[in-house]
Order: sequence, then C-alpha cells, then structure tokens
Amino acid sequence: MEIFIEPIGKLINEFSKLPGVGKKTAQRYAYRVISMTDEEVNAFAAALVGVKKRVRFCKVCGNFTESEVCGICKTRDPAVICVVKEPKDVIALEKLHEFKGVYHVLHGVIDPMNGISPNDIKVKELLARVGEGNVKEVIMATNPDVEGEATAMYIAKLLKPLGITVTRLSRGIPIGSELEYTDEVTLSRAFIERKEI
Amino acid sequence: MEIFIEPIGKLINEFSKLPGVGKKTAQRYAYRVISMTDEEVNAFAAALVGVKKRVRFCKVCGNFTESEVCGICKTRDPAVICVVKEPKDVIALEKLHEFKGVYHVLHGVIDPMNGISPNDIKVKELLARVGEGNVKEVIMATNPDVEGEATAMYIAKLLKPLGITVTRLSRGIPIGSELEYTDEVTLSRAFIERKEI
Repeated sequence: MEIFIEPIGKLINEFSKLPGVGKKTAQRYAYRVISMTDEEVNAFAAALVGVKKRVRFCKVCGNFTESEVCGICKTRDPAVICVVKEPKDVIALEKLHEFKGVYHVLHGVIDPMNGISPNDIKVKELLARVGEGNVKEVIMATNPDVEGEATAMYIAKLLKPLGITVTRLSRGIPIGSELEYTDEVTLSRAFIERKEI
Repeated sequence: MEIFIEPIGKLINEFSKLPGVGKKTAQRYAYRVISMTDEEVNAFAAALVGVKKRVRFCKVCGNFTESEVCGICKTRDPAVICVVKEPKDVIALEKLHEFKGVYHVLHGVIDPMNGISPNDIKVKELLARVGEGNVKEVIMATNPDVEGEATAMYIAKLLKPLGITVTRLSRGIPIGSELEYTDEVTLSRAFIERKEI
C-alpha cells in the first residue's frame, strides 16, 4: 500500500528530481506547499512555467536572456570577452561588479573522455565574434580543472595567431573546485591577476 | 542592478520559500528547472497545483485525503484511535506497518505561550468520536516535548472518566544509542519509567 495519497506522492516525486533532494526533503517541501495559500501555489507554478517560456539564450553570447540579445551584450564594452563554461558562471562573475566587458558562454568544455569535442560547444561562435574585429582581449574563465584547462589552451591556440591577447584567471582558485562555489575574495583576486597565456 | 533576469529571479524567490532553502540552493534548483524539458516543467507545475486542488482533510480524522473520508478511516479498526499532532506524524507511524487502528490529527498542540488553547486544535472532534461509543483505546502519540506532554495529559483527563483506556508511546533511551550520550532528561525519564523484566 502506498503511504502517501496520489497528489502528495506525485509532488514528492517532482521535488525529488531537484539536485540533492531526497525523499525526506521532498516530503518536507510537499507539506509546506500543502500549507500555502492557493495564490502562493499558483504563483509558484507560474514561476516554473514562466522560466521555461521566457528564458532563452542570447544569440550573441549564449547567456540566459528574455530578449534576442542579453542586457550585458547590449550595453557593455565588446572589446573584452570573458569565456565561461555555463550561464551560472556569468552570475558568479557578475556578483563581483569587477568586469566591464561581455561574456561568451561555451555551454560545456572539451571533454574527450565523455565524447565532447570542440564542435559540441560554442567555439565556432566565439571565433566568429572575434573575427568581426574590435576584440582586444579574451579572458578564459573556464573552471581550473583538467577539462577547463584543456579548453582554455585549445581556444588560446586558435586566437593567438589572430593577434588577440588571451588571458586566464590566475591560479588563486583552488584546483579541482568549481567557479560557482569559489568564495568572492578568491574569485575577485583571480580576476584581477589574470595572466596572458 | 539585478544579476538574474526576471523569470529566473522569480523562480529563485519561490524556491527560497521552501523550508531550509537559501538563495544558493534555490539558484541550483532554478537552473535545474531551466534544463528540464517543457513536459517535465509542466508536470512539476501541475503537481503543485494538483496538491492544492485535490488534497483536503478527512472529515473523520483530519488526515490528508482526496475523498470525504480517508482510506484509513474507511477500512481499519475504529476501536483504537491514535492521536497525533500533524498529518506527517501519520506517515511516520504508517511506515512501521504496526498499527491496525485509526488516527486523529489534532492539527497542533496546546501551547499557551503561543496562545494555542484546546479550542484551537481538534479536541472537540476527538471527544465527539469517542462519544459515539465503540472506542476502547486512545493512544496519545503527540511529541515527547513540553507541549506534546501537556496536550496528552489534558486529553487523557477528559477521556478517562468515559471509561476509555488512554495510553502514551513509551519514552526512553532510543534503541541503538548509548547511555553515555543520552541527554539527561531522556535518561531520567527512562529511569523513572523503568519496567520489570
């Protein structure tokens, strides 16, 4: 016999799909939802659906946006491009209020062990942006792990013959950790001390 | 400047309302939702709304149900009533597959410090059920804290004159724990309630 009645069981199952959420936590979440007002639950559901409906990728940089071109690409200095693996890395860097240039989201890193080649991520798009001229510096801000380093080196080799300054965040970031979880002081320092590669 | 675009910020805000979820965790959840398919997100939203639309309280015991009377009240022995504070306590006890009787959910406990009197919880409803006759035993399964104990004592005093056997879940040292690390209140209670073997 199922202990939970069907609608509660269903909601617990949905919450269990979130990262790091087990049955017990999902159950706590479901009970909180039951005790919410109709308006609160409807707003929650609308926010879920809204994020899928309204969020798309910027056609220039690949970051999340609501319009065709994101707010950063529209307003900031296009002479410096900071290259990151994922949209959440843009958030981590924007929190510093340090960088005045634009981004390029690769949507992955080169990872031959998992069959991900340069063609599977947005490398071509980056080259096209640089090819338009006016780009002075490309900052490689992929994670300081094996795949991130390899990706940075690969892209640097492609860009250097074009006369572009390619820099890399300084290795103040602890090796093996992820950009998203690096504390802001370390991340900020790594940004300021970026070095040409 | 807001770092997150509006639909993502909204969803992060909604996830932050769940118990124990901070900004960082809410952000992780939101990113997972963005990477879900439309079908998955729609199912999630439907589960949220569904739980509010379909879940109500059993008119007999106060537990969650989809119909007027819950599955437990419909099928099990009404001679033994187990009294709990909240619907989630029913789940905890049902997992044992031990109890064959029915429940009564108080939806709170007596807590004068927070202005909760016996009239604010489902005590009258319990007395009405017992008053219908056929009830032999009432098991007080409120939490073993100050309010839970007070509530159990209060209800026991009302029921005993009616000739009902009122019992309480035994309190003592948790199975598998060590005497040395048991808190003093628990150990003291275990000592006082020692049983002949």
